[in-house]
Amino acid sequence: MWHVPKLKEACGVIGICSPKSAADYLYFGLRILQHRGQESAGISVLENGRHFLIKGMGLVHEIINSDKTGHLTGSKGIGHVRYSTHGVSALQNVQPLVVQTRHGEVSVAHNGELVNADSLRTDLQNRGWAFLTSSDSEIIVRLLANELSGHADPVRSIKNLMRIIQGSYSLAIMIGDRIFAVRDPYAIRPLCIGRINDGWGVASESVVFDNLDGEFIRDVEGGEIIELTCDGPKSWKFPSPKDKAHCMFEWVYFARPDSMVDGRLVYDIRRKIGMKLAEEHPTDADIIVPIPDSGRAHALGYSEKSGIPYGEGLMKNRYIERTFIMPVQQERETGVMLKLNPIKSEIEGKSVVLLDDSIVRGTTIKKIVQILRNSGAKEVHVRIGSPPIIAPCYLGIDMKTRQQFVASSKSVEEINKIITSDSLGYISIKGLVECIGLDEKSLCLGCLTGEYPIQIEGEMVRFQKQLESF
Amino acid sequence: MWHVPKLKEACGVIGICSPKSAADYLYFGLRILQHRGQESAGISVLENGRHFLIKGMGLVHEIINSDKTGHLTGSKGIGHVRYSTHGVSALQNVQPLVVQTRHGEVSVAHNGELVNADSLRTDLQNRGWAFLTSSDSEIIVRLLANELSGHADPVRSIKNLMRIIQGSYSLAIMIGDRIFAVRDPYAIRPLCIGRINDGWGVASESVVFDNLDGEFIRDVEGGEIIELTCDGPKSWKFPSPKDKAHCMFEWVYFARPDSMVDGRLVYDIRRKIGMKLAEEHPTDADIIVPIPDSGRAHALGYSEKSGIPYGEGLMKNRYIERTFIMPVQQERETGVMLKLNPIKSEIEGKSVVLLDDSIVRGTTIKKIVQILRNSGAKEVHVRIGSPPIIAPCYLGIDMKTRQQFVASSKSVEEINKIITSDSLGYISIKGLVECIGLDEKSLCLGCLTGEYPIQIEGEMVRFQKQLESF
Amino acid sequence: MWHVPKLKEACGVIGICSPKSAADYLYFGLRILQHRGQESAGISVLENGRHFLIKGMGLVHEIINSDKTGHLTGSKGIGHVRYSTHGVSALQNVQPLVVQTRHGEVSVAHNGELVNADSLRTDLQNRGWAFLTSSDSEIIVRLLANELSGHADPVRSIKNLMRIIQGSYSLAIMIGDRIFAVRDPYAIRPLCIGRINDGWGVASESVVFDNLDGEFIRDVEGGEIIELTCDGPKSWKFPSPKDKAHCMFEWVYFARPDSMVDGRLVYDIRRKIGMKLAEEHPTDADIIVPIPDSGRAHALGYSEKSGIPYGEGLMKNRYIERTFIMPVQQERETGVMLKLNPIKSEIEGKSVVLLDDSIVRGTTIKKIVQILRNSGAKEVHVRIGSPPIIAPCYLGIDMKTRQQFVASSKSVEEINKIITSDSLGYISIKGLVECIGLDEKSLCLGCLTGEYPIQIEGEMVRFQKQLESF
Amino acid sequence: MWHVPKLKEACGVIGICSPKSAADYLYFGLRILQHRGQESAGISVLENGRHFLIKGMGLVHEIINSDKTGHLTGSKGIGHVRYSTHGVSALQNVQPLVVQTRHGEVSVAHNGELVNADSLRTDLQNRGWAFLTSSDSEIIVRLLANELSGHADPVRSIKNLMRIIQGSYSLAIMIGDRIFAVRDPYAIRPLCIGRINDGWGVASESVVFDNLDGEFIRDVEGGEIIELTCDGPKSWKFPSPKDKAHCMFEWVYFARPDSMVDGRLVYDIRRKIGMKLAEEHPTDADIIVPIPDSGRAHALGYSEKSGIPYGEGLMKNRYIERTFIMPVQQERETGVMLKLNPIKSEIEGKSVVLLDDSIVRGTTIKKIVQILRNSGAKEVHVRIGSPPIIAPCYLGIDMKTRQQFVASSKSVEEINKIITSDSLGYISIKGLVECIGLDEKSLCLGCLTGEYPIQIEGEMVRFQKQLESF
Repeated sequence: MWHVPKLKEACGVIGICSPKSAADYLYFGLRILQHRGQESAGISVLENGRHFLIKGMGLVHEIINSDKTGHLTGSKGIGHVRYSTHGVSALQNVQPLVVQTRHGEVSVAHNGELVNADSLRTDLQNRGWAFLTSSDSEIIVRLLANELSGHADPVRSIKNLMRIIQGSYSLAIMIGDRIFAVRDPYAIRPLCIGRINDGWGVASESVVFDNLDGEFIRDVEGGEIIELTCDGPKSWKFPSPKDKAHCMFEWVYFARPDSMVDGRLVYDIRRKIGMKLAEEHPTDADIIVPIPDSGRAHALGYSEKSGIPYGEGLMKNRYIERTFIMPVQQERETGVMLKLNPIKSEIEGKSVVLLDDSIVRGTTIKKIVQILRNSGAKEVHVRIGSPPIIAPCYLGIDMKTRQQFVASSKSVEEINKIITSDSLGYISIKGLVECIGLDEKSLCLGCLTGEYPIQIEGEMVRFQKQLESF
Repeated sequence: MWHVPKLKEACGVIGICSPKSAADYLYFGLRILQHRGQESAGISVLENGRHFLIKGMGLVHEIINSDKTGHLTGSKGIGHVRYSTHGVSALQNVQPLVVQTRHGEVSVAHNGELVNADSLRTDLQNRGWAFLTSSDSEIIVRLLANELSGHADPVRSIKNLMRIIQGSYSLAIMIGDRIFAVRDPYAIRPLCIGRINDGWGVASESVVFDNLDGEFIRDVEGGEIIELTCDGPKSWKFPSPKDKAHCMFEWVYFARPDSMVDGRLVYDIRRKIGMKLAEEHPTDADIIVPIPDSGRAHALGYSEKSGIPYGEGLMKNRYIERTFIMPVQQERETGVMLKLNPIKSEIEGKSVVLLDDSIVRGTTIKKIVQILRNSGAKEVHVRIGSPPIIAPCYLGIDMKTRQQFVASSKSVEEINKIITSDSLGYISIKGLVECIGLDEKSLCLGCLTGEYPIQIEGEMVRFQKQLESF
Repeated sequence: MWHVPKLKEACGVIGICSPKSAADYLYFGLRILQHRGQESAGISVLENGRHFLIKGMGLVHEIINSDKTGHLTGSKGIGHVRYSTHGVSALQNVQPLVVQTRHGEVSVAHNGELVNADSLRTDLQNRGWAFLTSSDSEIIVRLLANELSGHADPVRSIKNLMRIIQGSYSLAIMIGDRIFAVRDPYAIRPLCIGRINDGWGVASESVVFDNLDGEFIRDVEGGEIIELTCDGPKSWKFPSPKDKAHCMFEWVYFARPDSMVDGRLVYDIRRKIGMKLAEEHPTDADIIVPIPDSGRAHALGYSEKSGIPYGEGLMKNRYIERTFIMPVQQERETGVMLKLNPIKSEIEGKSVVLLDDSIVRGTTIKKIVQILRNSGAKEVHVRIGSPPIIAPCYLGIDMKTRQQFVASSKSVEEINKIITSDSLGYISIKGLVECIGLDEKSLCLGCLTGEYPIQIEGEMVRFQKQLESF
Repeated sequence: MWHVPKLKEACGVIGICSPKSAADYLYFGLRILQHRGQESAGISVLENGRHFLIKGMGLVHEIINSDKTGHLTGSKGIGHVRYSTHGVSALQNVQPLVVQTRHGEVSVAHNGELVNADSLRTDLQNRGWAFLTSSDSEIIVRLLANELSGHADPVRSIKNLMRIIQGSYSLAIMIGDRIFAVRDPYAIRPLCIGRINDGWGVASESVVFDNLDGEFIRDVEGGEIIELTCDGPKSWKFPSPKDKAHCMFEWVYFARPDSMVDGRLVYDIRRKIGMKLAEEHPTDADIIVPIPDSGRAHALGYSEKSGIPYGEGLMKNRYIERTFIMPVQQERETGVMLKLNPIKSEIEGKSVVLLDDSIVRGTTIKKIVQILRNSGAKEVHVRIGSPPIIAPCYLGIDMKTRQQFVASSKSVEEINKIITSDSLGYISIKGLVECIGLDEKSLCLGCLTGEYPIQIEGEMVRFQKQLESF
């Protein structure tokens, strides 16, 4: 039984305004957002009028510690955790990015992906700009600085920036001594506002505020610009479409189960998905088994709806969340360390329903099916909490190549054969949308339909009219 | 909601004989045993007739890596992971210990605790011996070497060693080019034999063999001396009492749920405990919620027996399994990072049964009860998978002071008040014993009864007659 | 006896073209230039058409090692070592800087200092540019990229860059797959060309080629643009003044004694300075003692000319070249570790002439004079290999504040009293110029005269006519 | 021009008693002794009655820092630096060694080598003792502990220890709360007593006290046992031969030039050796050039006596004192980094006398001769400050194999040809002894004569009668 390295990853951002010191809140907030990115971490804190930057490759507690933050007393700051990519220029790309401008320093932390990054970069290079990093965030921070140089008005600069950049972006921005939070007009990646003790914050997920003994207040709206002050948030609106494009994968997989994302508790939606799967693809199996930890809430829902008992039939090593793997060890590591181990008493002689959040290549789920069979499962029925993934994501998830998706060229029945299960059921798009409880027009389902909320070269646009309408 | 730093910890040992290289198996085996000890790790590998030692403070993958093991080709070796103690002399105490003797090198890895360590140490010091470490293991390895010096017979030496040392010991020993595994006559801490591909191994838990694509064969018996060869194990027996003293805590808390310990799958016993709790302390609550990850199997059992739905009502940060904490951060870390976060939709307005494996001081469970109340729980009923802990462990668990046990001076009803729950139910000793399915005389229940299987100064002995009988 | 932390520091640059791999030459070349900068190190190597960057804070061998370079096979690359400054933004400023431009990547390594950096930065910020670092080098690399975007002609771009930037600059530049070396029109900081085995290189000092079994060929001229190819250098000239402004401190202190700088062997000039000092400030002392290692060649010259014996009367700890000092230890470290220890038999009862390269604040030399007295010196006569430093350097040496120079407000006689010596003699400016053997008009003596070869706001310009003449 | 990795290395020890804190003095004292050993460092400090140990592989400032020592207030402690050996078991062998005994803790730091270590080890192993390290120091500390167990009298224990161990030993010992220093009866390795501020210390070299603003008092005598108290030293004598066996290499190479060793300033003796060489092997050369840094004082003496000018004709990279070298780089590192670079103006067309302290294999000096020739030297005359090394050292220097000594099988004339010099002159044994100024009978000249002061199996003993006489 094997669990693959994640193909689906995002980032996390945070911004804090606290009359006491912001650094501590940033540190703990990023640790709470660690599941959104494990490659790098950084904070930029307003300290005596300057943006004091601490960042590096590694987990939050490896990069930021009290040795480095103990002397910081600034009341404002932003932070970032970044997902795991590999590349020689990784260090330069670590966020926040801080630039010196005519009107002071500007720091930016970005979760999302610009679809016009390449053309913007080319345009700017043609105008003589050179880029020190390969990240979208440098485009954002420098366009912003360019805007600011003309009029020194942060909100106007942000609005003009929003006219230029297209794609998904949840931003925490510090301009001089002011903090802003911005969410793209489609509200693709999450961003929310909360209270902390005597101050205020923005963060990718509401769980930050729960853990900091604070309080989740509300989501940042699509196209909203928030200024974060210690007296509370101020808000401006950038013209935005009525229908949003929230990434359905946040609920299905990314976000922590205890987070509220766009008004919906993640855990609840996963349970509903499980229940819906029980309706759409019923079985008369003996036991419902999740792939830990991603399939647990789905499995509980399926169990509740079907009345079939839930069991923790697969165990994983909880000390493998993150390890720097030596290249030569990699293959064996993948084999041995990520292995899921069956609880024979839960599996043997039984008809098992196996629940997970999604299938990308199908190789992992196949191995898990086989492990269950080797442990004596009479039947293995696979139920998946998202519809088949058939198309790339251009808006913040690291799934780029159509060929890697088993569902892009195979029917469900073919996939069922490939993964050697007795039956395979994906939730329907309609079912998923129902479980989320939002209008389909307010979701980004690009990877499921191949139609995207934003114009992407070579891809189809959904709701063309909507795009033209504002 | 808060989760305390663990008070209950053990160690893990492994021994491997593989015609190919042992180092890889030791590395992966120790990673699989990582949950048994996170402070230090080490291996001793037979390499060209010498014992090649790699060890240090840290997690397995931080200490042992392919840079250091890539050139190792020896077919035999032993390894150790050690639990988290703190002390200035920590580095010297890291295992395995290797000594040079008249008849070659001797390496020892030890899980357990000697009850006559102090008197042995004093005796030997009086004879002019000096100790370089403060560990029981130095006593063991040097007594063994002393024995060997007389006659060079490993098995005879081990038997004579067993005549001298008293307490719990599961040992992996390499003497020259031979590997032995030894379990104390009472079989207090676990130790088992398994196959790996083309070789054989011993390990603290059977899960090692599952994950290495090998096969669990059987437990090492109390008083058994195993020689591990690539053709399989050879066995000698040291005179041992018929009744054993298996530590009940291995099933209740320590061992991985997917391990077989002394013939019983840990997961099954935890479920049975949960079911028994439902019998002994029934409720008519709305939902059964575990403290993750330790209470999960108990909760599933309670749910199954009671028919009350199971829900994952508490979430934890899965990136906190181990962090080096700066002293000044410690307090806040404990507060923020270890916090459990409630899923409101599972808790609000409900009568909740909260399941965990044990209560030591009671401070953590109290915080969790309060978190549930703050999330709107109508009632909170606590059910605990072990009887009240009232006495210290002298046989390998780091629970030494009576004063730290809330149950040593308070009644269950008093504890119920202290932790602010609506009701509190511990499993009974009788119930626990039934769930484990072994005769009470074969279990060590010292921390529950204050009566120990072995004579300990100032404590009562259980089964005095038994001790005298062999 | 005490030796102060250095106040006078520079940087080192290198560029290599070798048909085999450039990385090894860069690594070893930077280690040979290590005395020019110990804070950070980096290389950028052309690898499959891309600029592969390795850099960080630390000594060369700590940052660049065969683990990281072993796979590099590119034939071209540049490198940099940076002197010790301290600041929170240190990491971002580590060189080389690499940018992505319309016409590929551009890497820059810079030794020197721009006098119009602030105004350029402001101009560019006013035009909307934002800066990710606080270094002059970002100004250079981005101006260069801006130029390139228009016409893609590297040499034309470099020439246009040279029209904009003012100050000292010895540059190694990689533009796409081509390497250039540039020296400012005044040839302020050193730069030379040499052969290495089957290739060619540029480096701050000729000693690089000696140690790499190569051959020093010639200095890069002021205003010269070199393209480094594996077939040898090509050259272009930027209009430059006939008279140069070589920094006299390179010969007096910075460069290694075995380097040729602008046609003169450093060791020879230091000996000549010592001889000139013996003429200008003779003594009838018993022994000539250098402050190791900086005053050794000067002392040998003084001894030779005066006939007074040379003795190594002061010893230093050779394991203190560089240590990361914990802040709290710093004061005591400075006291204890940097202490020079007298050889009593060389000092006691003698009249001693103490030689060093320069005096900045005077605190160190005072301590050393006292140590000699405590060791029984009858008289202590101090002779200094540079004239009094009275004004800041704006062209690459970290001496910025007039107040720190004891000679800016005190006469030689007053300084003699302050440092408690029996006599004090600085070499005269005229004498120094004679020893260097170049026309005074070809030297930068700004820190000695307060008149600078380049217009600096608030300071006097020397040779105003010269500036206007080309 | 090449400089070989050192074949000749020793260790350094220190003991401090200061009413304030000892830890700081130990730290700085070891840094001052760093030239005696760069592989590992450690201190053991008496802290609340316990021996608090800090040690590890690396330079002093890498192992011991204020983070670790800041809280230490104990007034007593010992320390050790160890020379560079390579081996897998290196970590265990790091000193001080600390053992737990019947009468408290015992810490030992040892400079020297026991000639009966193997037989002692075998004897003790036959008695059933096992050794955790491969160091002589474990033999010493455990024999001492064994003695102590009988009567708890430290001085008596040390005397009995001295009856058993044979060889060279300068020891710093902490027994419970008392510190002792011991020097073997032949006083082979150095050890001296000094004052520090308000306390007292012992150290391998007097330079420690100079640098700590203290005062060298006297050498510890051969066979002397010193107890170090804050009121000054107490002394006991172990029966010792009248004639000593001071290692001549301490003056020729090991000790710092500014140290007093057994009443003689090292620098003075090196100068005298140079002068004596000028008498025994005169030349009419043009310049005297040392190999830096080891040959400098010898060269100054030769210059003074001969009247031929002294010149620093060879430069070395001062950033290579110590580097962890990756195995694959090692060969090239040795080639490039350790290279000495000639100052052509000092060499070209001249007849050069090259001075160094000793020749072991002859490979390095040959390369240096060739470099001088390549730089245009007309003639190269080599003068060596020690007589030919023909036999191993068994008493503390890492020169063990006769075959590695070029002089063990070749005549001086043959070596002259091998190293391609025009003439080669070693100082005579008689000359060396005169320069040192002690009776030949008080020196260990074993490596020069093959006759040792102590019985060594397979070797000749010098002064047999002397040995029998006490």
